[in-house]
Amino acid sequence: MKNEIVVYTVSDSLGETSQKLLSAVSVQYPDLIFNNSYKFPFVNREEELLEILQDALKDKAIVMSTLVNSGLAQVAQKFSRRTGLQYLDLLNPFFELIQARTGKRPIEEPGIVHKLDKEYFNKIAAIEFAVKYDDGKNPHGFLESDIVLLGVSRTSKTPLSMYLANKGYKVSNLPLIPEVPLPQLLSKVEKKKVIGLTCHPDNLSRIRTNRLDSLGLNHTSKYTDLEKIYEELEYSKQVFEKYGAYVIDVTDKSIEETAYVVEDYLKNSNSLR
Amino acid sequence: MKNEIVVYTVSDSLGETSQKLLSAVSVQYPDLIFNNSYKFPFVNREEELLEILQDALKDKAIVMSTLVNSGLAQVAQKFSRRTGLQYLDLLNPFFELIQARTGKRPIEEPGIVHKLDKEYFNKIAAIEFAVKYDDGKNPHGFLESDIVLLGVSRTSKTPLSMYLANKGYKVSNLPLIPEVPLPQLLSKVEKKKVIGLTCHPDNLSRIRTNRLDSLGLNHTSKYTDLEKIYEELEYSKQVFEKYGAYVIDVTDKSIEETAYVVEDYLKNSNSLR
Repeated sequence: MKNEIVVYTVSDSLGETSQKLLSAVSVQYPDLIFNNSYKFPFVNREEELLEILQDALKDKAIVMSTLVNSGLAQVAQKFSRRTGLQYLDLLNPFFELIQARTGKRPIEEPGIVHKLDKEYFNKIAAIEFAVKYDDGKNPHGFLESDIVLLGVSRTSKTPLSMYLANKGYKVSNLPLIPEVPLPQLLSKVEKKKVIGLTCHPDNLSRIRTNRLDSLGLNHTSKYTDLEKIYEELEYSKQVFEKYGAYVIDVTDKSIEETAYVVEDYLKNSNSLR
Repeated sequence: MKNEIVVYTVSDSLGETSQKLLSAVSVQYPDLIFNNSYKFPFVNREEELLEILQDALKDKAIVMSTLVNSGLAQVAQKFSRRTGLQYLDLLNPFFELIQARTGKRPIEEPGIVHKLDKEYFNKIAAIEFAVKYDDGKNPHGFLESDIVLLGVSRTSKTPLSMYLANKGYKVSNLPLIPEVPLPQLLSKVEKKKVIGLTCHPDNLSRIRTNRLDSLGLNHTSKYTDLEKIYEELEYSKQVFEKYGAYVIDVTDKSIEETAYVVEDYLKNSNSLR
């Protein structure tokens, strides 16, 4: 295909760094198609690597490498210079800067081996925590949380909780429903941990309509009714005030952006103490 | 500090690609400390950028950049050449390869703007799905799932579900408990969607002991008893056979590695059809 760019990713681990970089690059070329069907994780033999590079050359592919083994990285480097293969080593430029500065070399062990550390297990625990205390299922989680998210239906509480959990935060969330009384425990949560999510009523109505579509339900429900949404949002505003919540408007924000605002707020509110 | 390397990350978006690369690099230097307190997202003015670079120079920092704005990227490039600042542009080498090949230039819009697309909303829906159908809460989710995970307690069902959801898969999971009958709906799930997680009994006992520790409970429970664990694992083996599950041993595997095995299996089982 004319506008297709074939990308091979080669790694002695999983190759996640290459995927991340490739997705950052590909959004910059909306009219090109990046075909990354060729993912080669756990590469650890020279012959295997050379076969992959030969294929890449035939496919006129760009090769992204996160090989930490310097022997393999050099083989790929030499091969590319000799044949003109478009080859990008993501790690080596960084390794060279560090060597210039400290004289130190990387230990050359595939990254995944080191992942089962304390930070890793904290993250797993945080994810389990967020699932357990999603949707106000158990208000006792509020007291153990780093962050308590409040908001009416479809203000992205659940995916935001999971994203923040993935960064190691213990997060619980509570849906605000005017007809349902708030759990008493909420008043015992430190104010700076409470974050309120709000959204423009029109957007909320649209998101809820899409939601009902995807569930195969019809829209004559008060769930998507603008007047009802105004009421809900007004109620949520009162709750935010009552509990001293830090309020974030999620309209047109991606989860990543909202999470950034949350982290920035936490950092600042901690440094003020 | 002697073994500390200060790293500045500069981006016109969130800078997640730099974080990812930095974490891949840092595991290669267990005796160096990488201090990345200096994160600069949403940089879009030249003066702002120059101030950051000046500070980096003072701090003897390495600067990682994912600036897509070519004007800003050039400013940083020139500044670094002139001053000797250690500067790594992660995106530009890739942009140059693409230009050499297609003549095309990046659109230079910060990545985050493009994230609210269909793929993004599918991912959000998959995360909500996985939370909703975690822990066998509602067996009706099995029929809509791309993947149904089965396993005894502490075989990483929940974090694996969330990780796969984050890649867009609809995942449900069911804990296997000998005393609890299996939901009938399980027999209606396509065999190739059913994945069984198992683990070495010693590891499972250790993980469960840690789990009780973290919950502040004592260990005299049958939950950590090796004999009981053998029984549970034997039972899970029978269930896997009955439902034709593809079995993965998660002992010493990180979630990322297990997820890789799952995806590889799905790819192969689909290509066989």
